[in-house]
Amino acid sequence: MNSEKIPDIIIGRLPIYLRALQRISEKGIQTTSSQELGEIVGISAAQIRKDISQFGEFGKQGTGYSIPYLIEKLRDILKVDRVWEVVIVGMGDIGHALAHYNGFANRGFHVNMTFDNDPRKVGQKVGDFQVIDAASMTEKIKGHKIKVAMLCVPATSAQEAADQLVKAGVKAILNYAPISLNVPEDVHVQYIDPVTHLQRMTYYL
Amino acid sequence: MNSEKIPDIIIGRLPIYLRALQRISEKGIQTTSSQELGEIVGISAAQIRKDISQFGEFGKQGTGYSIPYLIEKLRDILKVDRVWEVVIVGMGDIGHALAHYNGFANRGFHVNMTFDNDPRKVGQKVGDFQVIDAASMTEKIKGHKIKVAMLCVPATSAQEAADQLVKAGVKAILNYAPISLNVPEDVHVQYIDPVTHLQRMTYYL
Repeated sequence: MNSEKIPDIIIGRLPIYLRALQRISEKGIQTTSSQELGEIVGISAAQIRKDISQFGEFGKQGTGYSIPYLIEKLRDILKVDRVWEVVIVGMGDIGHALAHYNGFANRGFHVNMTFDNDPRKVGQKVGDFQVIDAASMTEKIKGHKIKVAMLCVPATSAQEAADQLVKAGVKAILNYAPISLNVPEDVHVQYIDPVTHLQRMTYYL
Repeated sequence: MNSEKIPDIIIGRLPIYLRALQRISEKGIQTTSSQELGEIVGISAAQIRKDISQFGEFGKQGTGYSIPYLIEKLRDILKVDRVWEVVIVGMGDIGHALAHYNGFANRGFHVNMTFDNDPRKVGQKVGDFQVIDAASMTEKIKGHKIKVAMLCVPATSAQEAADQLVKAGVKAILNYAPISLNVPEDVHVQYIDPVTHLQRMTYYL
């Protein structure tokens, strides 16, 4: 396995495979094929075989993939065989949705703290969390050595909040604000912006 | 312009360019370069030039890109030079967040209706919308000839809801449920699942 050379586009597909495999596995099914997996995720069987073979020999010709083994390997590759503590920054609608979201468990993430700078929100309970004053954010994140954040503040304050996260040692930011963030090279950003996803589809309509 | 041959990966980057250009434009700036745009969006200048050149000759060597012209062209290519009516299906936290989201305007989309099958939610006001009973969804969507939907129901009911949307003539589904949907080939699906985005980053940590 030479992870240095795996193109990012392949890395981006692995969580999709993992999600599908975990769902098949929940039904008690033990083996699958690249054809079957391909039908579920909408990616060609050949592409799936090629992607997975980047990381070693997983399937045997004719017998398909062992689902538990492939899940274990993908979790290992994606480093979600552990639990990453995550903070939510900005407790508007999206922050609320993420605080209530029950899809993090068993997928490698656990929400640890939620922050907002609005005095009316600070101290309030949202799901299992008490909203913490964003003024203490850098210190709190550093103290807990948290590396992953979900950023749900308005576009106008997103860069400033991201700067604070970077200062606190965060290395992965899931950004819901509809702007591109400037961060150092060793900090990873993924974007969730419904409009860019919608625009990607209207092209084809 | 030969749009048939443009790889989907390039199409996926165009909304990012458009978003960045619209933000620069809001500051009153009229021209930009692939270098400047590249720094904003975190994509190399060479890649940006290559992507944009797929659609024709937009920039002049040495003078950069005219921002209003490039915005107009990108909106035209992505078909967001018009307004697409959109429905929200499932009025949980994510549905609420989308109903309140003010980032659709000027980017090609307008939320038209919101649906839920929970009798406690039907009839309630969420932002500017009254939640409509999902039982009438197919009929209502057909009646309004709506082609775009955002699906925010739980994973367990997502496929069933998607089937109804397809029956109603929807051709683009933005799916927030953490499962892969089976839809006919002429229906496009984009996925928003925070966990797959997070997993894509932990690989690099």
